[in-house]
Amino acid sequence: MSVSLSAVSDPPFFTVQAQDPHTAARAGLLRTTHGSVTTPIFMPVGTQATVKTVTPDELKECGAQIILSNTYHLALRPGAERVAELGGLHTFMGWDRPILTDSGGFQVFSLGHLRRVTDEGVAFRSHIDGAALFFTPERVIQLEEWLGADIIMPLDECLGFPMTEQAARVAAARTLRWAERSLAATTRADQTLFGIVQGGVYPQLRRECAREMAALPFLGHSIGGLSIGEDKATMHAMITEVVPLLPPERPRYLMGVGAPEDLWEGVARGVDMFDVVLPTRIARNGALLTRRGRLNIRNSMHASSRAPIEQGCPCYTCQRFTLAYLHHLFRAEELLAYRLATLHNLRFMLDLAAEIRASILAGCFSAARDEFLASYRPTDQGVRDQQKEKWLARRATRPPASASDATRPDDQELDDRTGD
Amino acid sequence: MSVSLSAVSDPPFFTVQAQDPHTAARAGLLRTTHGSVTTPIFMPVGTQATVKTVTPDELKECGAQIILSNTYHLALRPGAERVAELGGLHTFMGWDRPILTDSGGFQVFSLGHLRRVTDEGVAFRSHIDGAALFFTPERVIQLEEWLGADIIMPLDECLGFPMTEQAARVAAARTLRWAERSLAATTRADQTLFGIVQGGVYPQLRRECAREMAALPFLGHSIGGLSIGEDKATMHAMITEVVPLLPPERPRYLMGVGAPEDLWEGVARGVDMFDVVLPTRIARNGALLTRRGRLNIRNSMHASSRAPIEQGCPCYTCQRFTLAYLHHLFRAEELLAYRLATLHNLRFMLDLAAEIRASILAGCFSAARDEFLASYRPTDQGVRDQQKEKWLARRATRPPASASDATRPDDQELDDRTGD
Repeated sequence: MSVSLSAVSDPPFFTVQAQDPHTAARAGLLRTTHGSVTTPIFMPVGTQATVKTVTPDELKECGAQIILSNTYHLALRPGAERVAELGGLHTFMGWDRPILTDSGGFQVFSLGHLRRVTDEGVAFRSHIDGAALFFTPERVIQLEEWLGADIIMPLDECLGFPMTEQAARVAAARTLRWAERSLAATTRADQTLFGIVQGGVYPQLRRECAREMAALPFLGHSIGGLSIGEDKATMHAMITEVVPLLPPERPRYLMGVGAPEDLWEGVARGVDMFDVVLPTRIARNGALLTRRGRLNIRNSMHASSRAPIEQGCPCYTCQRFTLAYLHHLFRAEELLAYRLATLHNLRFMLDLAAEIRASILAGCFSAARDEFLASYRPTDQGVRDQQKEKWLARRATRPPASASDATRPDDQELDDRTGD
Repeated sequence: MSVSLSAVSDPPFFTVQAQDPHTAARAGLLRTTHGSVTTPIFMPVGTQATVKTVTPDELKECGAQIILSNTYHLALRPGAERVAELGGLHTFMGWDRPILTDSGGFQVFSLGHLRRVTDEGVAFRSHIDGAALFFTPERVIQLEEWLGADIIMPLDECLGFPMTEQAARVAAARTLRWAERSLAATTRADQTLFGIVQGGVYPQLRRECAREMAALPFLGHSIGGLSIGEDKATMHAMITEVVPLLPPERPRYLMGVGAPEDLWEGVARGVDMFDVVLPTRIARNGALLTRRGRLNIRNSMHASSRAPIEQGCPCYTCQRFTLAYLHHLFRAEELLAYRLATLHNLRFMLDLAAEIRASILAGCFSAARDEFLASYRPTDQGVRDQQKEKWLARRATRPPASASDATRPDDQELDDRTGD
């Protein structure tokens, strides 16, 4: 049986299992070489071939079905070809379930230095050692084939916020041409390439880009270039523009978005897949997710509490340790603190995705969403903006060699897409 | 049955199970409220109520039977009385096996600021916030009763190296008077207080101190004030002076000593218990223990190796991950690196203690020691001295508020007694 025939006769890559009657929410199943994934799904981020602080076994215990890793980071260190020589990314990091690799487009545009974009590709310097590098769509596919993830992203042009409509138009057009070249460059039948919809905050551009991407033979679609500084209403509006134009039989992945409230809002608009470093990054800052919002474990009100982070939470941390102990570990800057907080936040996000899916299958998605959002208090936008400014100010003064923002437990939560 | 009667009629605190015919090595069993401990034993150090980077479950998986914690550190943060309110140290940190607390004497003398010693006790300032504190033998017993460890140490006067014979004489005499006051101050029948032998590097002083401690009603003895800068021959000589004067039916604990070669040499001289932060601290620096000596995982020779740290090692890290992956994690400064290295080094030390015990029970201790030492290459003393100088120079320039040396993964290995 040839590869092209098998693609037709095998079970499809994605199956919609249930559709909510009142919203665009749906439940589905993704099939990959390394197993199936139920959707809607939250994907923990393992930028450097490790979800920070946790082992693959712990990820499974948290309920992770698929994780993300990053082509830009791995290409720089340890090198994609080296990972291939070591058996591919699954073997290298000891994770035998599905992996999705981002192309690194976002990272080239946010972390790379002295960047120069042409239609051919993007030249930049490594944030680690300043080495001159050149990414083309074909080169990125080569890197991702070396890494061997189950789902891969093509190189796209990512703009910062705000951007002009003209800049967004040029970037979307280039992203589209790069998407076609990426499709043509793939050689592995066991990887699924998604097309990424760009278009900034401009509805007309988003629609055009979505229509053209939908016409290409992708098996799934990403929505990129959101959650980069625009307000939530704008982000929701862009998703609402794009989703109806994407083929319903293909999964939709909202890149770099995935706070608890975002999951409900994204799913309601037809999104199937989410990833964001937020739950793991804020965990290392001592922000723990609960059904009522975030809890700051460093607050002295927790110093004497024998309660768990959340009553009834089945995560390892809540089963074993009190708020008082976690408070002590964070105050004492003990490394165990960062892991225990990460395990809780990951379990929270993965259980939340499972809860959303169950509500769709049970036909009560809207009621479940209303109930969750009625008690969950998202972080105030003003606080987020302040944190982001502080974080960007700190980054601006940091020398290139230490710009690997993702490796320090005291990072702020923002710039959630550069990696974790 | 009264407490004093039960102490007589219950199984003894310590039983010698086997005695090597050619050396002073012996195998034994310690009985505590939280279970038994086989000796010789290596005790992982959990200074701040956590063995850095690992959970209690992982400690058990590594084979840990008893761990250490530190009265000085816990009294400063979160406070010993708070730990008592939270159910005691076992409950607080989620460890249900035996715990030994050091009195904090060593830390007062190495970390405390503006120290002033009198016969009454020692006044000093907290290394965390500069708060004025006063430790007396009675106060330390009170703190340790609040913490609730199974085995506790009395306050002792610890000198730096080198020290004059006169200073060592004064400190040993004071330590002896404090030992008597500590015995008188204890109120809990479920804790066992050890007496600490001091005396510096002076054989006559060591013998006098050992004889006087042996005459007091302790159920176990510590040998303190060693591995603080003297050479190994001197350390061995001091152990050889002290051990024969201690009652054979009481366990002997060599404080702050426990490199692989030290375990064999200490056991050969009659020591039963060891603790040192070395295996966990060097793990966080990327130094991994093997049967041939230490391996530096950051070395580029490991970048492409699919081998484990050591063939046949049953530790979690060696069962799951390659040298190449560990090398990548260390180069990328990923937090998971520090845990995986710690798990390996702890397992190495705990398996080594078990191997030593088995060799005593099998009657082949000397042959087993010779075989181990023939292939194990200890770190060169010159390298250790250089590292120590660098570390001390860095400490000297560090402000008091960040002097908590034990909380950073990049600490050098030395000053192994201040905590981990």
